[in-house]
Amino acid sequence: MNLDLEKTSSSEHLYLKVYQYYRDLILCGKLLPGTKMPSLRKCSTELNLSRTTVESAYLQLAAEGYIISKPQSGYFVTSIAKAQKASEAEETRQEPKYRFDFASSGVDRESFRFDLWRRYIKSALRQDERLLSYGEPQGESDFRNALCTYIQERRNIHCTPDDIVVGAGVQSLLHILCPLIRDKKSVSFPTPSFIQGSTVFSDYGFQVHYRNKDCGVIYVSPAHMTKWGEIMPVSRRLELIRYASGHDGLIIEDDFENEFVYLQKPTPSLYSLCGGQGVVYIGSFSRLLLPSIRISFMVLPPELKKAYKAKAASYNQTASKAEQIALCQFIRDGHLAAQTRRLKRLYSQKLRQLTDSVYKVFGNSCSVQIGSAGTSIALTLPANLSAQDIKKQAQENLLRLQILKEEEGTVTFLLSCSSMPADDFLPALGILREILCKKPGSSSLI
Amino acid sequence: MNLDLEKTSSSEHLYLKVYQYYRDLILCGKLLPGTKMPSLRKCSTELNLSRTTVESAYLQLAAEGYIISKPQSGYFVTSIAKAQKASEAEETRQEPKYRFDFASSGVDRESFRFDLWRRYIKSALRQDERLLSYGEPQGESDFRNALCTYIQERRNIHCTPDDIVVGAGVQSLLHILCPLIRDKKSVSFPTPSFIQGSTVFSDYGFQVHYRNKDCGVIYVSPAHMTKWGEIMPVSRRLELIRYASGHDGLIIEDDFENEFVYLQKPTPSLYSLCGGQGVVYIGSFSRLLLPSIRISFMVLPPELKKAYKAKAASYNQTASKAEQIALCQFIRDGHLAAQTRRLKRLYSQKLRQLTDSVYKVFGNSCSVQIGSAGTSIALTLPANLSAQDIKKQAQENLLRLQILKEEEGTVTFLLSCSSMPADDFLPALGILREILCKKPGSSSLI
Repeated sequence: MNLDLEKTSSSEHLYLKVYQYYRDLILCGKLLPGTKMPSLRKCSTELNLSRTTVESAYLQLAAEGYIISKPQSGYFVTSIAKAQKASEAEETRQEPKYRFDFASSGVDRESFRFDLWRRYIKSALRQDERLLSYGEPQGESDFRNALCTYIQERRNIHCTPDDIVVGAGVQSLLHILCPLIRDKKSVSFPTPSFIQGSTVFSDYGFQVHYRNKDCGVIYVSPAHMTKWGEIMPVSRRLELIRYASGHDGLIIEDDFENEFVYLQKPTPSLYSLCGGQGVVYIGSFSRLLLPSIRISFMVLPPELKKAYKAKAASYNQTASKAEQIALCQFIRDGHLAAQTRRLKRLYSQKLRQLTDSVYKVFGNSCSVQIGSAGTSIALTLPANLSAQDIKKQAQENLLRLQILKEEEGTVTFLLSCSSMPADDFLPALGILREILCKKPGSSSLI
Repeated sequence: MNLDLEKTSSSEHLYLKVYQYYRDLILCGKLLPGTKMPSLRKCSTELNLSRTTVESAYLQLAAEGYIISKPQSGYFVTSIAKAQKASEAEETRQEPKYRFDFASSGVDRESFRFDLWRRYIKSALRQDERLLSYGEPQGESDFRNALCTYIQERRNIHCTPDDIVVGAGVQSLLHILCPLIRDKKSVSFPTPSFIQGSTVFSDYGFQVHYRNKDCGVIYVSPAHMTKWGEIMPVSRRLELIRYASGHDGLIIEDDFENEFVYLQKPTPSLYSLCGGQGVVYIGSFSRLLLPSIRISFMVLPPELKKAYKAKAASYNQTASKAEQIALCQFIRDGHLAAQTRRLKRLYSQKLRQLTDSVYKVFGNSCSVQIGSAGTSIALTLPANLSAQDIKKQAQENLLRLQILKEEEGTVTFLLSCSSMPADDFLPALGILREILCKKPGSSSLI
C-alpha cells in the first residue's frame, strides 16, 4: 500500500487520503466488484492509523456507493465504479448541447402527431397472437399490401405486394440486394456524401465510383440530387434510363424526400418510366414520420425477384413487427397521406421563412441555392476565416453549422430547416453574421 | 372482343359470359384501374346482345367490386382486382393451418406478460424529444449501460457499455462484424442448420465449413450444441479457447438459449473464460421475450473495437429506438430477470411433461434425447414409412413435424415444446403413433 501520508497536514485529512487511495483502486478496476475490503483492524494496523480514521474513509466510500457493508461479513466493492466510469466516458464523447442547430437530421416537433401514432402502436401491441411468432422474412403481408396500394396511388408504381421487400432502413435492404447483384461489380453514387450507401457496397466488394454512368449499378436519389433539394428533371431521367438499359446497368432509385417537392409537380419515378424493368425502387418513412421508426422497403424488378425468392428464407426480417402492423393500419386509415400533406405545407413554409431571414440578415452579400424539393438551402457568404474556425466559434456560441464548401474568400453552408423552430432562424443567423463580421483576434463569444 | 357466345345455351347465361370476359381482362391487368368501361349501348351493339344482358353483367361486376359506377360518367375499373390477386397469391403460398405444431419457433402464450411490456413501450413512446431524432449508431447508451450491468451479473462478462453494439437481430450484427474480420477468410459452424448465419458469411466471401477448428472464425452456440439442447461442457470450452488462441482463430459465442439450462449450473461463458480476448459474445432476446422484438447485441473484444469505432458512423442502427428505450427500463426494473425465472420454470416443466407424454404414448419402442438445456427433445421411433410420407400424412391431420434424421427403419423427430400448450402433447403424439402404426394403403385420415 502506497499512501503518501507524510505530506498530509492534519489528521482530518488523513481519512481523505485513505478514501482516495481505495477509490482510485476501485475506479481503475484493480479492486474488482465483489472483492472484500481489508477489515478495519487490519487496515489501521498496516497504515499505522487510528481505526476511526480508517472507518471514516470506509464510511465515505460507502456513502458514495463504492463499497457496501454486509452485516457480519464486512465491506465489499460494488460495481458502481464501472457504471460511473462508463457514463463519464459517454458524457465526454457526447455532442455538446447546441441552442441553434442548422445541421440536425431530426424533424420538427410540430411535424408529428405522437398521440395518433401511439394509438396505432397500442393497437398493434394488442395483437398478442401475431407477436408470439417471428415475422415473415419479406415483411408482413398486410403491410406489403398497403404499401403496394400506397405507391401505386402516389408514385404510379404498379407492382404486386410480392415484389416488395421490407427492412429496417435502407442499409438492411442493401444487405439483401448487394449479394443478389454481385455480378454487377461496380456502383456509382452522385457524390461521396452518402457514406451509409457506399460503405455497404464496398463491404460486399463492389468498386465505388462517383458520377460514372458506365458502372454496373447506378444509385440515384432523383428528388435529392443535391443537399439543397435539386431534383432530376424528366429529360435527365429518361436519358439515364436509356443509357443504363443500353449498358445493362441496374438503377437503384432511392426516392428520398420525394414527398417534399414544392415548386412543381413531382416528376414520375424512374421505376414507372421503365415499366418496372431494370430499376429497384427504394422508399422509406424516416423523413415522413420519425427518424426513430426504422422501416424502409424496396420494389424488386422481375429479373431480381426470382433470385431473391430463392434466398428469402435465409434473411430474417429486421423491421419491428409491431411497427409494421401499426404503419399498415396508419396508411389504410389515410393518415400517411394526411401527414405528407401537413409536412409539405410545414416545410415549404419554413423554407420560405428561412430564405427570407437569410436575405434580411445578409442582404445582398449572400448567394442562396434552393432546389425544388427538400428541407435545406445552401448559403454562400464571403468569409475571411477558415471553415474550421467558423465552426469552432459557432460551437462556442452554441450554434451548430454544416459546411459544404470552402473556397478563396467564401464559405458555403448547408442550412437545414426541418428541425429548428422558425422563430430561431433570425437569432441563429444573427450569430453567424457576427462571427463572420468580427475582427480577427477579438473574443469569440457573441 | 372474343366471346364464345355460340356455345352458350340460354340467354340467362349470356350475361355470365360477358361478366367473365371483363372480369378476366381486369384480373390479368389488361383493363387497368381507372379505365372507363364501354357504355351499355356500345357494348350491346358490338356484341349483338340486349342492353339488359350487358347491364346484368355490369351489375354483377359492380356487385363484386371489379367496377364502380360514377353518376353521369359511367362505369370505371377499380383496383380491387390487384389487391384480390395479391392476397390470393399470398394465401396459396401461406402455410396451411395446423392444429398441433411441434415445429414452431414461436413461444408459449403464457410465457409473456403483454400488459407489462405494453406499459414500457407506452412509456418509451412518450419520450417525444428522443424519438424526433435518429438513434445512436451503436445503440442507445442508456440501453447499453443496462445491458452491461445485466451481462455482468448473469454471465460474468466484464466489459464497458462502449464495447457493446446493438442490432435488430443476429444478422444485423454479422453485417457489421463480417467486414471487420474479412481477413479471417473462413468460418466454421457446428452444423449446416443455421442458414441465417452461414448465408451472411458466404455473402461476404467467407468459405463456410462445418466442425473445422482450423477456420479463421469459429461460430458456436455453447448452450445449444444440438437442437435438443446439449451444452458444451467446460472442458470442451477451455479446449476450444486454447486451440483457437494458438491458431489466431476468432470465436463467435452465440449464447442462444443459455437462460434455459435446467439440469445443472450454467457453465461460464467463453468470453469470461478468455477474459474477453479473442471472443465476440452475441446475445439476443427473441427467446426470452418475443420473437417479434428484434433486438440483439454483441460485445466486441479490444482487438476489434478499434476497427469498429473507425466505421461505426457508417452503419445506421437497425433496432427500434422505442423498443430499446422500453427494454432498457424493463431490465433496470428487474423484469427481465423475473421473466427469465418464469420461462425457465415453464419450459423445464413442459419438457418434463412432453417427455412423460412420449413414454406414455410410445412406451419402450422409442428413444429420447434430452440435453441439459433448451426447449426441444429428439425422439427416435421405428418407422416403415418415408419421412416425406410421414410429414404429408401428418399435414393432412393438421399436425406439423420436424424431422431431423431418417435411417433404415427409424425416423428421428425434433419436438419443440416452447409454443404448443401442454394439454396438446398427448393428442398430438397420439396422431403420430397412429400414422406410424397404420397399415400402408389405408386412409391417411385419423
